[in-house]
Amino acid sequence: MGGDHAPRIVIEGAHIARGQFPSARFIVFGDETQIRPIVAEYAGLADVLEIRHTPDRVTAEDKPGQVLRTGRNSSMRLAIDAVAKGEADCVVSAGNTGALMAMAKFSLKVMPGIHRPAIATFLPTRIAGKGTVLLDLGANAECDPYNLLEFAVLGGVFSRETFGIAQPQIGILNIGSEAMKGSELVKESAELLSKAKLPGIYKGFAEGDDIGTGAFDVIVTDGFTGNVTLKTIEGTARLIKGMVKEALKSSWMVKLGLLLALPGLLLCYRPMKTFSKRIDPRYYNGASLLGLKGLCIKSHGGTDGIGFSNAIGVAAGLTANKFNAKVEAELQRLGADALRPAAAAEAPARLAGEEG
Amino acid sequence: MGGDHAPRIVIEGAHIARGQFPSARFIVFGDETQIRPIVAEYAGLADVLEIRHTPDRVTAEDKPGQVLRTGRNSSMRLAIDAVAKGEADCVVSAGNTGALMAMAKFSLKVMPGIHRPAIATFLPTRIAGKGTVLLDLGANAECDPYNLLEFAVLGGVFSRETFGIAQPQIGILNIGSEAMKGSELVKESAELLSKAKLPGIYKGFAEGDDIGTGAFDVIVTDGFTGNVTLKTIEGTARLIKGMVKEALKSSWMVKLGLLLALPGLLLCYRPMKTFSKRIDPRYYNGASLLGLKGLCIKSHGGTDGIGFSNAIGVAAGLTANKFNAKVEAELQRLGADALRPAAAAEAPARLAGEEG
Repeated sequence: MGGDHAPRIVIEGAHIARGQFPSARFIVFGDETQIRPIVAEYAGLADVLEIRHTPDRVTAEDKPGQVLRTGRNSSMRLAIDAVAKGEADCVVSAGNTGALMAMAKFSLKVMPGIHRPAIATFLPTRIAGKGTVLLDLGANAECDPYNLLEFAVLGGVFSRETFGIAQPQIGILNIGSEAMKGSELVKESAELLSKAKLPGIYKGFAEGDDIGTGAFDVIVTDGFTGNVTLKTIEGTARLIKGMVKEALKSSWMVKLGLLLALPGLLLCYRPMKTFSKRIDPRYYNGASLLGLKGLCIKSHGGTDGIGFSNAIGVAAGLTANKFNAKVEAELQRLGADALRPAAAAEAPARLAGEEG
Repeated sequence: MGGDHAPRIVIEGAHIARGQFPSARFIVFGDETQIRPIVAEYAGLADVLEIRHTPDRVTAEDKPGQVLRTGRNSSMRLAIDAVAKGEADCVVSAGNTGALMAMAKFSLKVMPGIHRPAIATFLPTRIAGKGTVLLDLGANAECDPYNLLEFAVLGGVFSRETFGIAQPQIGILNIGSEAMKGSELVKESAELLSKAKLPGIYKGFAEGDDIGTGAFDVIVTDGFTGNVTLKTIEGTARLIKGMVKEALKSSWMVKLGLLLALPGLLLCYRPMKTFSKRIDPRYYNGASLLGLKGLCIKSHGGTDGIGFSNAIGVAAGLTANKFNAKVEAELQRLGADALRPAAAAEAPARLAGEEG
């Protein structure tokens, strides 16, 4: 198992998730001698958690193409295979993203009707309890309009099933809201989406600053723009947090001031806690690789037990909502060739990073 | 003159900027009957500010192609023409971006050696006083590698002249730092930039979360990605600010707590003020349209007098540093054909939004 702090965060995450999802069962793949003592720290966890020993693992440096050939006994591959075989409902990994995508696609296979799987996540908005689904976040660096149409279907079902929104408002990320603005890709995609029968309503172009307002339930974009956007959001939040910390550390006068302010600030504890939870990236951890025949969730590599438990939560949610069955039903409703007519056949699908 | 709150913010901005740049002189184009009474509110401003009356103006809805034909007497066009004629050193506008770009390009002309002008701005980083220059922010929705090379030259000189960095670290925005990651555009651009003689050092790929760290002095990208990135930064900052406000308004208990905390918080006033200035978008207002024979600064349409004065500050800085002469010297040093060999001639340059 991967991630910067594995296996501890994985076991801790399972322990925390168990509180929220009492019926969840876990199969953990990795080095048993490392995993068993950590599991023993949590009373009762061993009853719901099976360890499958495998010494092989995928490292952060491994190239996707290479692990496809040589990583057949890695913990990542065996975990994915468990989903392919029906032993598990969903795989959750904090390991190498490129390797996870390549192996998941190879082992789980792409859904009929979908040509490119996409990575999706939900992002916080001004409206409490409402997230905007953004995809693709980097599975496909280059896309054509039919890819964006598929993303709209996947994202629409994701929004409906996860947030209970009957008719998600779907947008295409662009550099302006007027029809004439943007690249050829977004203009052609807009034409396609405005005519398609979507699981939701095509609302038009969304701009970068529309992501946090909640005006759109789903925003689709190519994997290049989506990845840059996601990392820009993370970087901006980190920058502001760092600036606040720096300001509060700057002098003895400030420290004295904060000490004097403490009793008053304690009365503000609850909303401040709610606020810090709303912008804490751990609570948005767990990006979903959508469009495969099995469910696969990617956790941030640098997260902790709380973060990993949230990725497990995303997995539990998609499983409970029968996400894949809902997408299949949606594709059937649209008709087999709806998303990509034979005339618009694309080059063989490639996952970003597969070149290695 | 344009912008949501013109002409007041323009006059106010000139008044504020005058404090910082005592030798600055202003020519204001617009409706004299509106402008004159506002100028009269500021003692002595009339001595350094000339009003040129013109009733015609470009609106936010006007299409760039249309104003090129019909807007010859608009305040925006006459202001740009004043730079073209050498009556002014730089034009600053809070009006319609597409119209400003189209008219500036038409009237000021592109510099020899540059094929596409780019919009650049500097963004705050963790390192106080150090900004990262990001370009293109939307002038060119679709780019080829030679465009990114030109942006690297423009951005490198911008960073050197504005921040005094002798060897700016230049990066290409991408979805990973490894060479195999990303779109064809960034891979080919990386090859080109790593071989070129730049006004700085090509450091490699930058990711979205590298923008705020200060690890790069210049980050180049196509105008589509750059525009989405800039607006995502603005949207994220606004989202966090909104969430803090909401948390602090949430109950009487919080209001009481803040009241009790007030004396202590007053001791923290200075660093909190510094912090809020560091993330205040008004202090980053003023995007530069680089690569034209004259200087042109675009202010945010929705800014206030302080924001507009900062856009004037950017104009004053580029003028004082003889930015265009420095770029010309740099292009000469690189050799006439350095940025785009004849074999790689591109389709005629188009500005985004020019279609209308």
